[in-house]
Amino acid sequence: MSLLTVGTVAFDDIQTPYGHAEKVIGGACTYISWAASYFTNDIRLTSIVGADFPTEEIKELEARGVKMDGLKIVEDGKTFFWAGKYHENMNQRDTLQTDLNVLDDFDPELPDSYKDSQYVMLGNLTPDIQIRVMEQLTAPKLIVLDTMNFWMDIAMDRLKVAIAKVDVLTINDEEARQLSGEYSLVKAAEKIFTMGPKFLIIKKGEHGAMLMSPDKTFYCPALPLAEVKDPTGAGDTFAGGFMGYLAKTEDTSFENMKKAVVFGSTMASFCVEEFSLGKMKTLTPADIDSRIQQFVQLMSVDL
Amino acid sequence: MSLLTVGTVAFDDIQTPYGHAEKVIGGACTYISWAASYFTNDIRLTSIVGADFPTEEIKELEARGVKMDGLKIVEDGKTFFWAGKYHENMNQRDTLQTDLNVLDDFDPELPDSYKDSQYVMLGNLTPDIQIRVMEQLTAPKLIVLDTMNFWMDIAMDRLKVAIAKVDVLTINDEEARQLSGEYSLVKAAEKIFTMGPKFLIIKKGEHGAMLMSPDKTFYCPALPLAEVKDPTGAGDTFAGGFMGYLAKTEDTSFENMKKAVVFGSTMASFCVEEFSLGKMKTLTPADIDSRIQQFVQLMSVDL
Repeated sequence: MSLLTVGTVAFDDIQTPYGHAEKVIGGACTYISWAASYFTNDIRLTSIVGADFPTEEIKELEARGVKMDGLKIVEDGKTFFWAGKYHENMNQRDTLQTDLNVLDDFDPELPDSYKDSQYVMLGNLTPDIQIRVMEQLTAPKLIVLDTMNFWMDIAMDRLKVAIAKVDVLTINDEEARQLSGEYSLVKAAEKIFTMGPKFLIIKKGEHGAMLMSPDKTFYCPALPLAEVKDPTGAGDTFAGGFMGYLAKTEDTSFENMKKAVVFGSTMASFCVEEFSLGKMKTLTPADIDSRIQQFVQLMSVDL
Repeated sequence: MSLLTVGTVAFDDIQTPYGHAEKVIGGACTYISWAASYFTNDIRLTSIVGADFPTEEIKELEARGVKMDGLKIVEDGKTFFWAGKYHENMNQRDTLQTDLNVLDDFDPELPDSYKDSQYVMLGNLTPDIQIRVMEQLTAPKLIVLDTMNFWMDIAMDRLKVAIAKVDVLTINDEEARQLSGEYSLVKAAEKIFTMGPKFLIIKKGEHGAMLMSPDKTFYCPALPLAEVKDPTGAGDTFAGGFMGYLAKTEDTSFENMKKAVVFGSTMASFCVEEFSLGKMKTLTPADIDSRIQQFVQLMSVDL
């Protein structure tokens, strides 16, 4: 089933206790598309880059079934650039530099071939862009929106307009608290459901992820890993695995979303083991199956 | 099966955003014993109090099968007192006052009737006291030790002697990192297993708990709650439920310990819903069964 992915395609400069990766490939849409490509091959990427972005990277994604009709290449522009440094504990990071470059003019007009997309993953971007994409859709079956505290700080009203239009909202625990004004995640979820979404995914980094509906909650732990080299893109990779699995299985029930959360968590567990897309480009179905079994072991108890 | 509980019996003064509880009943051994009493009725409490401790509290525990031969009452002494204030987020607290009082002279000599105890829960205390208790045991089947960063700061050598003697160590994630010098919990566990314990339980508060053996890991989430009024005693209540279930079922396999972790988490989820022992004294088997089913729902996925 068709999967529309929208978000940044970027260059990243990443420092972690494990090293320094200079000008590597990043961006929400990149991670989402790579992760989803292990599950489905009708992926419609929507983003913007400058002429400095490597053609080879685009071709690699195309070879995995990712359509590029919606990738705008600005010939005289430079690709969005983000530089960050992670603290020793990897749970916190400082942004060292953000050059919006071509992203400053991103106003995505969906190609006609994209408009009937059924599964829609809106990566973290300005709420206005997310709204504009949704307005162009003719037959969405499931819209998932990712966002962050930055937009809550500077564009809460527009963010609420965007959130009102989606089926699933993915945010982290602190963002759920900020958005709702409630500390308890149970109460936060109750408030967020009154804003529009039918499902809420609360991402908790090394502590896992929670899928909530108004009457059900599922908790998927994160796989404890010996080495986390670079957390960049983990949330987007989670979203890509989640949506890729849903687009593949075409089942948006809570029961199937639970499985999708485990597949998303599985993909994220690979993502963080290497810098940039280092691991995400090399996976095999056997790798994924094997790690899914590790999740089963981690979570199963016979009560 | 016999369960020895060792730890503080105390007065607490607790401030949280939900209120202020002055001079209420607290103490690790109290929470452990109350939680365990829902599973087994051969509990042997070992602690020390002053003459100011209410006889009624002792009688209530006795009525639940908790033996008091090991409770030393110092006629001219005052009971251990702790005062603390929780931050808005409940994950952090400041200690406002600690009066050791009779605890300063606590040197537990086990009654003869306690020495053959098979399941042993050593609540957080000085490592020397924990060692002294272990030296008096004649037939322990499973020894579980709880400790905290305070002892790592001031008595690491003695703590390591204590840890070397136990089967299960329960600590939180930051303490696992401090004890091992490893940030990754996978690597931390590997190091801790070389120190003696065969099992490690990493308590993560609102994020749940992990049970680890050298070759297996199980993750039990915490139940998301609408209101957490007072986190005091949650870790001890977890330990009490965990050990109570093991003493009841007499099965120390990893598979059964997984169930015990869920029962411990269930008891802890009740504990935090009221100040002090407010909720822990009022539970019914149906309450516990019902909440166990909530955990099953929270964790189950058919992959």
